[in-house]
Parts: sequence; C-alpha cells; structure tokens
Amino acid sequence: MTSKKGKTLNFQNLEIEPINKIGALEVGKYGTRAEQLRELFNIGLPIPDGFLIPILSVNERHNLDEFQLSRNFDDLEGLYSLRCSVLDNTWGGVNAILNLGMNDELVNHLVPVLGKKSALAIYRRFIQNFGTAVYGLEPDLFENLVHEHVRSSKVLDDNQLEESSLSQIVDDSKNEFERWTGLRFPQNLSDQIDLAFDFLCREWTRPSAVILRQTRGAPEDAGLGVVLQKMVLGLGSDFSGSGQIKSIIKDTGESSLHGYFLPNSQGKDVLLGTRIPNVLSEDQRISEGQSIQSLEAMHSDSFERIKKMVRKASVEMGETFNFDFTIQANKLYILGATIAERSPRASVRIAVDLVGIGALREEEALLKVEPYNLIEFLHPQLNPGVQRDVFGNGLPASPGAVSGRIVFSSQSASALKAKGEAAILVRLETSPEDISGIHDSAGVMTVRGGMTSHAAVIARGLGLPCVVGVNSVNINLSEKTLTSRDGRKFLEGEKITLDGTRGQVLGGSAEMVQPVISGAFSKLMDWADKYRNIGVRANADSPQEALLARNFGADGIGLCRTEHMFFEKQKLLVMREMILADTEETRSESLKKLLPMQREDFIKFFQIMDGMPVTIRLLDPPLHEFLPHSEEEMAILAKSMNLPLKKIVDRSREIQEFNPMLGKRGVRLGVTLPEIYDMQVRAIFEAVSYVNKKSSYTVVPEIMIPLVSTNREVELIKSRIKTICDEIQIELSCELVYKLGVVVETPRAALCAKELSQSCDFLSFGTNDLTQMTYGLSRDDAGRFMRVYLEKEVFPKDPFRSLDFEGVGELMLMATKRARKENPEIELGLCGEHGGDPSSVKFCKSVNFDYVSCSPYRIPIARLAAAQASILGKNSK
Amino acid sequence: MTSKKGKTLNFQNLEIEPINKIGALEVGKYGTRAEQLRELFNIGLPIPDGFLIPILSVNERHNLDEFQLSRNFDDLEGLYSLRCSVLDNTWGGVNAILNLGMNDELVNHLVPVLGKKSALAIYRRFIQNFGTAVYGLEPDLFENLVHEHVRSSKVLDDNQLEESSLSQIVDDSKNEFERWTGLRFPQNLSDQIDLAFDFLCREWTRPSAVILRQTRGAPEDAGLGVVLQKMVLGLGSDFSGSGQIKSIIKDTGESSLHGYFLPNSQGKDVLLGTRIPNVLSEDQRISEGQSIQSLEAMHSDSFERIKKMVRKASVEMGETFNFDFTIQANKLYILGATIAERSPRASVRIAVDLVGIGALREEEALLKVEPYNLIEFLHPQLNPGVQRDVFGNGLPASPGAVSGRIVFSSQSASALKAKGEAAILVRLETSPEDISGIHDSAGVMTVRGGMTSHAAVIARGLGLPCVVGVNSVNINLSEKTLTSRDGRKFLEGEKITLDGTRGQVLGGSAEMVQPVISGAFSKLMDWADKYRNIGVRANADSPQEALLARNFGADGIGLCRTEHMFFEKQKLLVMREMILADTEETRSESLKKLLPMQREDFIKFFQIMDGMPVTIRLLDPPLHEFLPHSEEEMAILAKSMNLPLKKIVDRSREIQEFNPMLGKRGVRLGVTLPEIYDMQVRAIFEAVSYVNKKSSYTVVPEIMIPLVSTNREVELIKSRIKTICDEIQIELSCELVYKLGVVVETPRAALCAKELSQSCDFLSFGTNDLTQMTYGLSRDDAGRFMRVYLEKEVFPKDPFRSLDFEGVGELMLMATKRARKENPEIELGLCGEHGGDPSSVKFCKSVNFDYVSCSPYRIPIARLAAAQASILGKNSK
Repeated sequence: MTSKKGKTLNFQNLEIEPINKIGALEVGKYGTRAEQLRELFNIGLPIPDGFLIPILSVNERHNLDEFQLSRNFDDLEGLYSLRCSVLDNTWGGVNAILNLGMNDELVNHLVPVLGKKSALAIYRRFIQNFGTAVYGLEPDLFENLVHEHVRSSKVLDDNQLEESSLSQIVDDSKNEFERWTGLRFPQNLSDQIDLAFDFLCREWTRPSAVILRQTRGAPEDAGLGVVLQKMVLGLGSDFSGSGQIKSIIKDTGESSLHGYFLPNSQGKDVLLGTRIPNVLSEDQRISEGQSIQSLEAMHSDSFERIKKMVRKASVEMGETFNFDFTIQANKLYILGATIAERSPRASVRIAVDLVGIGALREEEALLKVEPYNLIEFLHPQLNPGVQRDVFGNGLPASPGAVSGRIVFSSQSASALKAKGEAAILVRLETSPEDISGIHDSAGVMTVRGGMTSHAAVIARGLGLPCVVGVNSVNINLSEKTLTSRDGRKFLEGEKITLDGTRGQVLGGSAEMVQPVISGAFSKLMDWADKYRNIGVRANADSPQEALLARNFGADGIGLCRTEHMFFEKQKLLVMREMILADTEETRSESLKKLLPMQREDFIKFFQIMDGMPVTIRLLDPPLHEFLPHSEEEMAILAKSMNLPLKKIVDRSREIQEFNPMLGKRGVRLGVTLPEIYDMQVRAIFEAVSYVNKKSSYTVVPEIMIPLVSTNREVELIKSRIKTICDEIQIELSCELVYKLGVVVETPRAALCAKELSQSCDFLSFGTNDLTQMTYGLSRDDAGRFMRVYLEKEVFPKDPFRSLDFEGVGELMLMATKRARKENPEIELGLCGEHGGDPSSVKFCKSVNFDYVSCSPYRIPIARLAAAQASILGKNSK
Repeated sequence: MTSKKGKTLNFQNLEIEPINKIGALEVGKYGTRAEQLRELFNIGLPIPDGFLIPILSVNERHNLDEFQLSRNFDDLEGLYSLRCSVLDNTWGGVNAILNLGMNDELVNHLVPVLGKKSALAIYRRFIQNFGTAVYGLEPDLFENLVHEHVRSSKVLDDNQLEESSLSQIVDDSKNEFERWTGLRFPQNLSDQIDLAFDFLCREWTRPSAVILRQTRGAPEDAGLGVVLQKMVLGLGSDFSGSGQIKSIIKDTGESSLHGYFLPNSQGKDVLLGTRIPNVLSEDQRISEGQSIQSLEAMHSDSFERIKKMVRKASVEMGETFNFDFTIQANKLYILGATIAERSPRASVRIAVDLVGIGALREEEALLKVEPYNLIEFLHPQLNPGVQRDVFGNGLPASPGAVSGRIVFSSQSASALKAKGEAAILVRLETSPEDISGIHDSAGVMTVRGGMTSHAAVIARGLGLPCVVGVNSVNINLSEKTLTSRDGRKFLEGEKITLDGTRGQVLGGSAEMVQPVISGAFSKLMDWADKYRNIGVRANADSPQEALLARNFGADGIGLCRTEHMFFEKQKLLVMREMILADTEETRSESLKKLLPMQREDFIKFFQIMDGMPVTIRLLDPPLHEFLPHSEEEMAILAKSMNLPLKKIVDRSREIQEFNPMLGKRGVRLGVTLPEIYDMQVRAIFEAVSYVNKKSSYTVVPEIMIPLVSTNREVELIKSRIKTICDEIQIELSCELVYKLGVVVETPRAALCAKELSQSCDFLSFGTNDLTQMTYGLSRDDAGRFMRVYLEKEVFPKDPFRSLDFEGVGELMLMATKRARKENPEIELGLCGEHGGDPSSVKFCKSVNFDYVSCSPYRIPIARLAAAQASILGKNSK
C-alpha cells in the first residue's frame, strides 16, 4: 500500500502464503476470506490447499508492468479456483472463477473420475464462463451452441446429450471464442490464472463497484487480495456434491444446524434453483415439512463431521459461522466460512451462548453486541413479516411500534384512554401543556420538530413510540383530518400505526412483537455492570420514571427536571397563580402552596432511589411555558382562578419571548426571582431530612443550577442555598450534606469551567443545549432542514442524536481539563439525550467522566456501551 | 504594599521626599497630589516646600506599632498643613488639617506679621478644628464660647471682638478640649502631626469611605499618601488671600482664565460663602456682569503671574488645570492643581488646543480623548441646562435626543412625517415590518428589548435616538395611550422627548443642542486616521447609509445586510411572493423579479464606495420575518396578491419557529433553498461587471456567508458561487475577482476556524450572534433581566455593548490563532455592534484584526479607538 509514495514493488516480494500452514496470518494483509481459511485450517478443518496473495491497492497492481501472477506458481498442475479476499465483506466482491487449468489434455484425465460426459460438461462450462467473464463475450454465443444440439438431438436438455454432441460443442465453443477474441482458447494454467487475475482486478475497479464500496465506508484505494485454491470438484461417481451450512436461526440466535446440499454440484450450483437441493438435517426436513431427503440421511458420516466442525469453529474462533462445503468422493471439504447473519435480537443470544460453550470470555461477548441492538428488547416492534402500509416518513424519535386511533388534542387522548383505547396523538408540534395528553397517549406523531423536540424528548422519557418531522402530511384541525402527500385522508378516530424505530407512519393497525427481557439479555446486562467503570444514571422527572430507571438498572438519577412536576394538573394551577401574582406577597403565598407538593415528590424520589445519588435541577424553563397559549385555554384558566381574562392575556403577552431557548430561564430566574429557587431548595432539604430520619441510609442530594454563563450566578445561588440549609438544620435539628453543581450547557460555561469548578462539587454537561448553542441551532426547529443537511452530508450525523465530537466535544474536553486542573475532586457527568448514545458514552469514558445520564429506556444501551468503553479503554492501556 | 505577605516595615525606610526637588517622583508611589506638586515645582511654579510621604496601604500602617510620623521630622518649626494624596482623585479624600504647629508660643510669633487679633483668631480656629476633627468633639462646644463673647460684648460677629475676648476664648477653648478629652491641648508640632496623621488614617478607613471608593473602582487595600506642607497663611496686613483659578470653559473647552479670590483668607475659605469673593479677571467681571473688583484690577502683578503660570503648566505638563493659590504679603504661591473638569465635548477642543500650543504631540492628544465622548458631536443633545421631566427610564440604545409626537404604529409615523412633523414611535417591541415606520420616525422607544434588540440596532444604524426596555410604562393599543408607573397618561399625538444618550423618556418637548462638527473634532479625526493601523468599516444596509459611512470616514463597508433591502415596499411584496410560492417555478419567477432590484442596489453601493471594499452578507434572517404578523396585515397582503387569506395564514404558521435566532436562517437557507443565494450572487456579479465597465477602479466584492457551523456548508455555497461567476464571466465577457468569507457567529464556527480558513479569504466575527450563542442569551429577550444582572454584577458590563473578553473573546482568540496558522493570508474583521465600542476595538487591534465594522454613527468613535489602540500597541512594543 505504499505505491502512492512512489515506492516500486517487485512482485517477487509478494509474500504469498500457502493456505494450509499452522499459524495466524498478519491481520489485514490478505483479507478476511484468507484469514478465515487459514484459521479454519489451524483448528483442523479440511480445507483444500492453495495460495493466499496479499492485498495490494489496485494502483499498485497497475504500477507493475505486465504483472503475471502465475510466475509465482511455475509448477502448478490440476484445477484451481480464483476468489477475492478483501478487508471487509460488506464492501462487495467479485465473482469467483472456478476450474482454472481445464484444457484439452486435462479433460481426458478427468474421464476416469467423472465419466466422459461430466468431464466434457465441465470443460464446456469453463470455456463459456471464462469467455464471458474474462473477455466479456455474450453468454448466448455459447448457449446457442448447446440449444442447437439439444434441438437437433431432440432431447430435453443438455444432460441428455450424447458424448459426441458434447465433444462437438466443446470444439465449437473454442472456435466461437477464437472468432470473437482473435485468440486461441488458452490451454495453459499459467495463462488462465493471469487472465483471470486481470479480470478480477478490472472488476474491482469498475466505477460502480468503487462507488458502492465507498458508500459503505471503504477507503479510496481499497485493495484486493486473492485466494488461488485447489478445486474440489463435487462431481463424480462416488458420493459428491456441494452445499451450504447455517448454524443459527437468524431472527432469534437459537442454535440450529440447517442448510442445503446438492449432489453432483459445485460452486454456487446449489443456489441456481435448476434442481431441488436436499436439506441438511432430519430435524430441518421435519420442521420444514419437506419430502426430499436430508444429507443426514443420505450420508450420515459427512453430516456428523459437519456437526463437529461447526461446533469446533464456534468454540475455537468465538463466532458463529455459515459455511460453504463440498463433498468429493465421500470426503468433506470446507471451502469458506462467513460470519452468520443475525437480527439485532439474535446477536445478544449468540454472544451469550458463545460464552456458554466457552468460545468467548464475557468481555469479548460484551464487545460483540452493538448497543443499539438492545432497543429490540425494550419496546414492542412491528412484526417483521407484516406488509407495511407507509403513508408518512419522519424522524425515528422514540423507538418501538404502536397502533391506535388518531387524536388531534390532549383532551381527546385522555378521553380515548378513559375508554380503554390506545390513542396516537397527532400534532403540528407539542408543548408542555400537552404533557398530560402525551401521558395518556400510546404514541406521538408530530409534523414539525427534530430528534430533541419537545415531543421527542417526552416520548423517549416515557418510552412511547414517536415519529416527528413528518412534514409530508397536512393536519386540518377544524376538519380534524390528517392528509398524506398522495391525498389519503384520515379522520380522527381512524387507526394508524407508528414505527418509532424506523420513523414511519402506517395506515391501519399492525401486528406487534412484544418485548421479552430474555435470559440472554439480562445475563449480558449483568456482565455489563461487572465490567463497566463509568456510572449510568437516569433522566427521570417523576417517581414513575425513577421506578423505571431502577428496573432498567440505573446507578442513580443524573437529571431530575423539577419543572416537569409542575405540569401535573393541581400543581400547574398553583404555578400559574404564582406567575400571575402581582405582588411579592401573593407570589410567596403560591410558593408556600407549592412547597409541600414539591417536598412530597422529592421524598418519593429519595425513597425509590434508596440512597443512590439523585441530581435535582432547579427550575429551568421560562415562566411563559406554564401559561396556556390559546385564548380558549386562557378563558378556562381565568374562570378557574376567578381573574379577568384580560389579565391573563396581558401577563402572558408580557412574558412572551422571541427566543425562549435563549431567554429568561434557568439561573436567570433564580437570580431575578430568587423566591422560586428558595422554595425548591427548601423542599429538597425538608425531604432529605424526612427521609433520613426514616431510613438507614443518608441522602446526599445533588443540586444543579441550569443555564449558567458566569460564575457569579453560581455564587449568588450558592449563598442562598447555604442560608436555607443552615436554617433548616436548626429548624428540623438535622444534619444536611449536599453537593452543588452546574449544568454546563452554554458555551461560555464550558469556557469558564475553571471558575465554576472553584464553586462546584460537580459539573454535568447538558449536551442538548450545549449542542444547540454551539451550532446556533434550535432543536425544536432543526427538523425543518435536518434531512437535507444529512443528505448533503453537511452533518455526518444528527448532532442531537450523536455527540458532535469536533465542536461540542472540543468544548467539553476543554472544560474537563480546566475543571480537573482547578479541582481534581470534581465530579463530571453528562445529562443530555446523548447519554443514551453509545458513541457519546464512549467519548465520556475516554475523558473519564464519572457518569452519563439518559432516559430510562436508554439505560441498558448505555450500560452496554459503558462496559464496551471500559473494556476497550483497559485493553488500550 | 507588602505587609500582607508578612514583611515588617521600618518607618525609617519610608522614602520621604521633599516637595521642592528637581526630578520626577516614582509614578504611583506618592499619589497624584504629590506628583502634581513636584511637577509644578519642576516647571518653576512657586510651591511652598514640605514633605511627601509615600502611599502605604492602611493595613501596613496598622502593622506599625505606634507609628509616629513626626519622628521623621525632628527639627520642624512653624505652621504646616497635612493633606492626603491618593492614587486616583475620583476615589474621594479626607479633609486637610491646616495650621499644624500652632501653640501658645507660636501665636505670639505671628503677632508682628498678622496683628494680635488675627493671630489669636487663627489659634482659636485651629483648636476648634483640631478638637472636632481629630477628637470628634462637637463644634458647638467651641462655637458657643464665641457666641457668648459676641453676645456679652454686644458686637455683630467674632471679627469685632476685642483682643482680650479672643485671648479668653483661646484659653476657654483649650479648657473645653481638656474637659472632654482628659488631655491638655497638644502644644508640640510633633504631637499634632502624629495625631492629625492618625486622624487622616482613621477617616480613610471609615466603612462609608471604603465603600464609596470601591464603587469607583478602588482596590480593597487602596492606600493613603500624605503631603506635609509649609503653611502659606493668606492673612496679614500686606496684600494676602487665597483663591481658585480655572483656565477653560467646562462645557466647550474654550480657554478662559476665570475664578475667585478672597482677600485675607486661607484654605477653602473662598468656598464658604460667608464673604463675597472677588472674581479673577476683568473679562470675567464684565462677562458675568459683576460689580465686585477683580484680582486683575486689585493686584495686576499677581494676576499676570497667574496667567503665565497657567499657560506654562499647560505647555509643560500637556494638560489643562485648575489651581488653588494663596497670596501672602504680595507673594503668590500655588498650593495644588487638579486637572480641569470638562464636558465630553470640551475634551476634544482641549486636546486639540494643547497640540496647538505645543504642549502635546498628536498621538498624546488622541490618547487624551475618551472615544465615547465623540457621541456628543454626532447627535443632537438635550440642552444641559433644561429641567428634565423624566417619566420613564430604559436602556440608552441609540444616542442623541429628540422631541416629537407619540405614535403607536408605523403607519401613524409615516402619516405624521408626511405632515412634516417629528414622530416618536412607541412600541412594545419592533420587528422588521416596522423598518419603514422607523425610517419615518425621529426617535424610537420600546417597552421591551435590550441593547441589541431590533429597535436598538436599526435606530443606531439610522442614527435615531432610541430608548429600549422602558418596562415601567404601559401601552394600551386599543385606547392608544402610554401610561407611566406613577399614572401619568399620554395620548397619541402628545409630545414627549427621548434622551437616547441617558436612556430617559421625558414629558413634553425640550430644547436641543445641535451637532456641530467643529474644527477641533475634524482635526482630531484626521490625526486618528494618520496614526491608526486597523481599518474601520461601516455596517451599511442602504445606499443612504453607505453615503453616511463615507461622510463619517469609513474605509469601506464591512457588513451589508442584503435582507434590509428587501424590506422596502416594492421588494417586500416580491419577497413575499417568493416565500409564498408553491413550486420551484413560481419561486424562480419571483427571484427573477428581485434580481434587477438587488443589482441596482449593489451598483449604487459600489459606486458610492468608489473602489473601497464592500462586504456583502447573503440573506440571513428566517423567511417568516418577511411575512406580516397580524391578521389585519395578512388580509391586506392577501388582497394585494390576490390570494386566499387562508393560504397566507397557513404558510405563515407553517414557517413560524420556536427560536428564530437558532432556526432555519443564514447558510441553512442557502443550502436548502439555493436559488435565493444564486440570485443574490448573480446580482452582485452583474453589478460588479456593470460598475467595472464604467469606472477606473476594479470592484472586488467580498461575499460573506452567515450562520455557518460546518465547513461543508461553505464548500456547498462556494462551489455554486464559482459556477455563477464562471457563467457571468462568459455571458458578460468580463473578468471577475471576488473574496469569499464567513461570518463567525456560532461558537462552532470559531472552533472550526482551521477548516473554514482553508475555504475562505476572510473571516468576519459576528459578535452579536456569537455573544448570544456563547451566553445562550437572546439579545431580544435580554432586556427583561439585564438591569438586574448589571446591578448584581453578574455581568460587569452588558456583553452586547462591550465585548466579553473572557468568554466570547477567548473563542475569538482561539479562532484567530487557528485561522492564521492554517492560512496566514486570511483577512480578519469584526462586524458586530461591538465594532463601535472602544474597548472592543482595542481588543481587535491587540489580536491584529484587519478591520472592525460598525454602524455609521459609530465610525468616528471607532476611528479614534483604533488610533488609540495603534498608538498604545506601538508604545508597548
């Protein structure tokens, strides 16, 4: 791979290796097929011998003038196959060329083994394949010769032709070859190898092949290795044939030996469908209800050998494979193996089973499972077999699938739920007022919004399937209809289905697969906890979510958004009273009413979490979020509060903001209206005192200040918290211990991490907002163009799903360094949506964060990702 | 100043200096009074001799046990004063103690000089002053003694008392002193000095004094220097007295010798008002219409000496001073000098005049003027003498003052303007639709919004006085009234006055002072251009603003916000057509209509700027900003476009955003709707080609892409620009040269400066948005709590007015380093509102930006700040 730097290559120096030699190949030098063949030989499987030619970039091959591969194989005899062996099987390959070496002389040598007809048939097919593949001749040129003979001989197919006809066809085929190419058909193995090799190289560099593999992540100069392997014919009068072995059930990962075998065949013949193949095992024959014999019955000896080999390969190689095999005169050969295809769900079972048979260590098994695959275990899914009647596409905001009836308002959702029916809430977008409606819905679809829009965040938190940004549909609220781009109209109450895993909206209801936390899954989770050394906490805003978090194995709560508690009906009313208060007195009265409600919630949190850390974020959103938005709702509020409507309308207008995300929220409320934070802090401490008195553990609440941009803000809040703590210690004669921290979510907070870490016990990176502000991109509005941006590769990934290491990550890294330098004891965590994204978890581990925090439904994913990061981190040390 | 570190001080080591010695004092060691006395002596002014005691922090003085200042002055005789001398006169000082050394013996020595009565009067007053100041005794204790004698002697006042009475009062005063303090009145100069010195120290550390000076920027351990100076009595039978000299007219800076003189007085007697003082000069007497004699007439010799000394001090010290003087027996002494107080306007005249008399070099004069002072020259101001009827306070968003009639809508503003009357537009807030209304107004007041809200930015751009965030008033749009907090109600059409310099709203109209670009001002600007080596460009959105920019001396246009052009009536309609277009075809038709309009604007820009750089920012705001907001306006639009109202309402709702600042705007429009940028780029190039063909210079437009967060965005736009450029070069057979740049306004763009500078010719820091995003703070919503934040010192300054060096500045610095390292040729500039803020200009110079760009009315300020930065930068090298 050095030709780019001008180094000339001598093909004598090509480090050609025999297949059958003890010892591993240099990784990445010969390609995966070669490596696997060598490994299979090493564990004792019967592999036809041959040669492994290393990967060279195609540029390099071009630099070699008249490169003749065959010069390396002066004294070769017999039949050979030439196959490609590349670094990554997903990049696509080039078809093999079989039976190289066939010629006028060898055909006669084969007669005693195969009979004359079979020998001639092989030769004929070889001429055709070689001519069409290597010289690009039309297959019909050769097929027509056969058809003519079939017709003139009045037989059904070429198998019934006489030897003399076959012999004539071979001659005619060679003539046809010569007529079109101007060359005699090559009779020499060396020439055939070189020509076939040139062919493989040409195929590899076809523009369409290059583009295909580059879209799959191949580098521009991806090279091609080749395997030149002795043919095992699979033909002849003794028991012969070829087939494929599968050792697991793809969808479940369950062990099950099955596959196909075609007597008297070679290569991919078994897949051609011209003859019905035999099944592999008796079990398979019975379960598939087939009448055709199994290999097990036909040739139990081979079958038993296959069984042993499959197990051996798994045990020795720590993986589950599919195999290509050939039987030549009762003798079994393995031609190649590929890692068995599997569903996300199956990957867990397989990894755990491989540990069970001693093939893998637990750490290795943990690394084998893609964390996102666990989503399959956590939510119901559409039955993979069903026909999908998709009428809208959007962003897969919260995984899982659900069917239900369309509702266009929170009220309707609640009404439907009361009737015991599943509602799918369909909105342009959702706002905090919809929370109760979302709670009462089985799924949410919004026309606008991105991956971290309000609907998306709430739905993920609740584990509800959700599709957002379905901008191809129209909602007509007066008619209460949903219309798809192609004009299909759905009325309120009609059934639709959401697939939140794929981001699809389907007409009608559909069959679901229910989540089963299987033994393999929980075993894997146990191992994950054993090996990970970064905490996984939950973003939980209600006691129900805290329970869920514990059930999913959280180490604590990393983000409790106190404001979500205020959206419950009773509290929302008092909250609104507080906001509409004219004087400090009436405000303080409302706050007095809120205090015991908050305290109750905190008591529940602390009790559920049983002494585990609970991080409470003080009020964050701007106050107008708590006021109703429509005039209708304002009128209801006015009536219930016995206030003139105008007052509510005026106050609501007065506190509206142009950019609420960047407005008077977070610590800015804490500084300008300190009574609110005072109340919250008091509720926290009173709850701590209550719980401590009743339990054996000591609660150390972690109080977190949002939207900080200067350390002075922290100091102001900190001193008030201290005062309240001192007061309560005396009032309730208790001792209180707490930690104080900051959500690092403005870029400026990241830059000021040094100062902040002087005032704080912990910093928690709020990567949602940090991403918004670093990009200058509102998560609620990003849906409008995110798709185009991903299509045009402006963003490699949605930065709200997967942490932007380059920009946001740099700020985090900078802050981390500054904070640790100033205060080596400081606790660091991440509490954005990214906490449930495996690559982000790995990033957090790489910078040695103490924990990540994510929505409860993401916890298993984060636990696995954390274990992987810990294992890889240890290995790399 | 080292006692804090535990070093003990030996007061023998106090480096006490005589006042009258040739050579400068070590700067900052003895305080300004001391330094000025020494300097005055050095240039030959008659200064009473004495001693300068260096500044020590008060902590240090306390560390000295029983510190006796007098030990340093063993052989002192006669009368002395003890005055403080601190680092900064604005910190406030402590009253002087005069006549130290007076005692039973000395009073007799003074009799031959002053007469017995005067000598006794001095002694009496000394005992009283010393007792009240140093021992905190009640003045009445002593005053009562005098009153008793006046009463019993049946005279009018103490001046008429007999010698015997005075002698008795002296004795009684000493007894009174002893009765209350338990101490004999100190007869010893040394004791008096030490006691007086202790008193000064005590006064200096009074909590109220400490707080006062700390609010004025003094450090916690600010120290006190003292001057012990030989008394010049100002009393006696020969011509004696004391007075004050002023050498300029405070408001204008014009030279004019004036002041006051009181015969037979000392210290601050002239200010007591018990006797009417004489004026200084005959001119003064005449111009003030006074009947009392002038010093010039009374003692022309002293007056002539004063005239010479005043001029000499200015010439030699490069500053204009006020002086305290005493005449003792025909002999003139200068007791001290303070820098003459002056209005912002006067500071320019004085600095230029000082160069005129050879007292300063041009660079020195440039450094003497605070750039913000130039605001006085650029806008009309309220006559300083008028009574202010203030009924509302807000933020001083755009300087200058104006009176006019209240209007509550843009339409009314235009209507009023049509009648030739000045309108003050009063709104909750303004939006882009109000642009024409703002244009037609003489001033703008908004209830909401911060220093960079829409109203503030537009008003500054137009040079209109503007006050925003006046949240103490209420607007009732249905009644069309404005109500102040104290209930005053103003109707539409009533007159009010805005003072945009102070942020006040006044009832009624008020007298104005018109701006005069005086000779001194324009001379200073010429010097600024001569010495500055950082460019000053203008943010100019219309040809009118470009003209203004040239008149104010801009080096080019650093930011032309193309969208502002679209708000003109005709263009706005086409723009709305484009936004409401259903298909790409109809959109492209609207764009075709916009093209020639844009081209015309650009042609004007290029022609006005005459070959100077013109930086054009492609469309930035989200499209919904161009649509009407109220249903009423939508209805008008629907009618004029012949569209159903519903269509406009729907489309308008569809493109509304939660956080427009972080939404689909800037390059995000360019990437997703590339036709718009294509049109703009085409308009630019066609305009360049047109202008180039008609003129001798070559226009090299600088095209700037807003809201970039990844380099991929730049690459996408860049390649389209190149294509269009190539097309036009062929179409119009011309050669086009242009520069491409990016507005660095997202934190991520700053972090990615390395990549950006590979694709760009220039980077321009958009510090408005960069500040918003770094703080997570919307400039439109910041007004809601900015005051509290400034009061609580969360922000030392409004970060939208004065660049936040710590946070935003760090990002800029980081970006600058990365960009320069990657592309040393890259041009760097700043185009936010900060471009007109002197400290920000200095920052830009310190990191060697090529230019700053600011609103036209700020250009002189930026030019001066740039000159100062360049001069200081050169000096520090």
